Amino acid sequence: MKPVAAADLVSALNWRYATKQFDPARKIAASDWTALEESLRLAPSSFGIQPWKFIVVETPDLRAKLREVSWGQTQVTDASHLVVLAVKQAVDAAHLDRYFADTAKTRGTTVESLAGFRKVIDGFVAGKAKAGQLEVWSAKQVYIAAGQFMTAAAVLGVDTCPLEGIDPAKYDEMLGLAGTGWATQMAIAAGYRSAEDKYAATPKVRFPAAEVVERR
Amino acid sequence: MKPVAAADLVSALNWRYATKQFDPARKIAASDWTALEESLRLAPSSFGIQPWKFIVVETPDLRAKLREVSWGQTQVTDASHLVVLAVKQAVDAAHLDRYFADTAKTRGTTVESLAGFRKVIDGFVAGKAKAGQLEVWSAKQVYIAAGQFMTAAAVLGVDTCPLEGIDPAKYDEMLGLAGTGWATQMAIAAGYRSAEDKYAATPKVRFPAAEVVERR
Repeated sequence: MKPVAAADLVSALNWRYATKQFDPARKIAASDWTALEESLRLAPSSFGIQPWKFIVVETPDLRAKLREVSWGQTQVTDASHLVVLAVKQAVDAAHLDRYFADTAKTRGTTVESLAGFRKVIDGFVAGKAKAGQLEVWSAKQVYIAAGQFMTAAAVLGVDTCPLEGIDPAKYDEMLGLAGTGWATQMAIAAGYRSAEDKYAATPKVRFPAAEVVERR
Repeated sequence: MKPVAAADLVSALNWRYATKQFDPARKIAASDWTALEESLRLAPSSFGIQPWKFIVVETPDLRAKLREVSWGQTQVTDASHLVVLAVKQAVDAAHLDRYFADTAKTRGTTVESLAGFRKVIDGFVAGKAKAGQLEVWSAKQVYIAAGQFMTAAAVLGVDTCPLEGIDPAKYDEMLGLAGTGWATQMAIAAGYRSAEDKYAATPKVRFPAAEVVERR
């Protein structure tokens, strides 16, 4: 199984850039968007713990309001789709119960038979919590999903722009996340570049391979 | 430009799993590996700041030693390739100088003409440092690269296993990173699954789409 040739993959990754100006008239086809939602859902995470939730903002009014707390970035309103990536701030017993129930169901076994694995994860999570690193650890997993989403989009020929320059607390309020234990990490706008976006033709800035890849 | 059909992408992402047992006899072709190194180098990061370095561990002895500080996980020695993802702990003036010099060179302009953008980034970085969030922010970018790498591998038909359960401080020592301002975040083993890896046939555990994707 090898859906893409190496050269085409590299072309797609070079083609990708943080799109500044989207074409508001071009929408992502439903089949492509469904695949992109799947790229988020299927993303790898530590232990497969999935400490995340993805909010697709469809209401134009809400997108306009979010734009106001995103430094006015036009991508928030102009891109075909906007997805907000939220982190589970504290992976708690309820989240783990849900995870183990789902694991048992998927694998046709019982939660009891997974008790040993649960003990490992409980211990790991308690350690992270004690070190004050639990939310950071979970947040990093969300960034794996962000990476998978943007790469998936690139190979589908869909443009994206990661939006970290937003007001996460305001996003939480507007999306109804505040106080729920879920918190906005970042947003990603997805759609198609405008023909007028001059950044599309600007050469990508990356350190040379010899500087970022070392061998031992 | 659309190298992959949506259905093939989703198949590849479902095919991907955290490989437990690699086939030590199967090596990734040089052209595919080069593309995977490029997937790391070309990964998106906030401001394109690239607070990362990637260390490909080729020496069998060193891989054997790293395995000892990786809970003995066989992937460290048996996979075709092992790459360690390291973070720049404090994005400092030297890193930014390098970044702006590279930007000016790539875009055929002068560092001086980028002074306004530099001021924005200096202010942003100072804010993160003041909040004690600079290393966390950089580490999150490394996880974007990890996501891009694993997704890229999946569409190339290359298996991966992310390794967070390692001793990063020991990795830093063995890789000569300790004291350099760079720190191990995680490692990823890449290669081809062994025919004996029973996890390859184990159904993937993921919360249903209705539980992780919400709409507003």
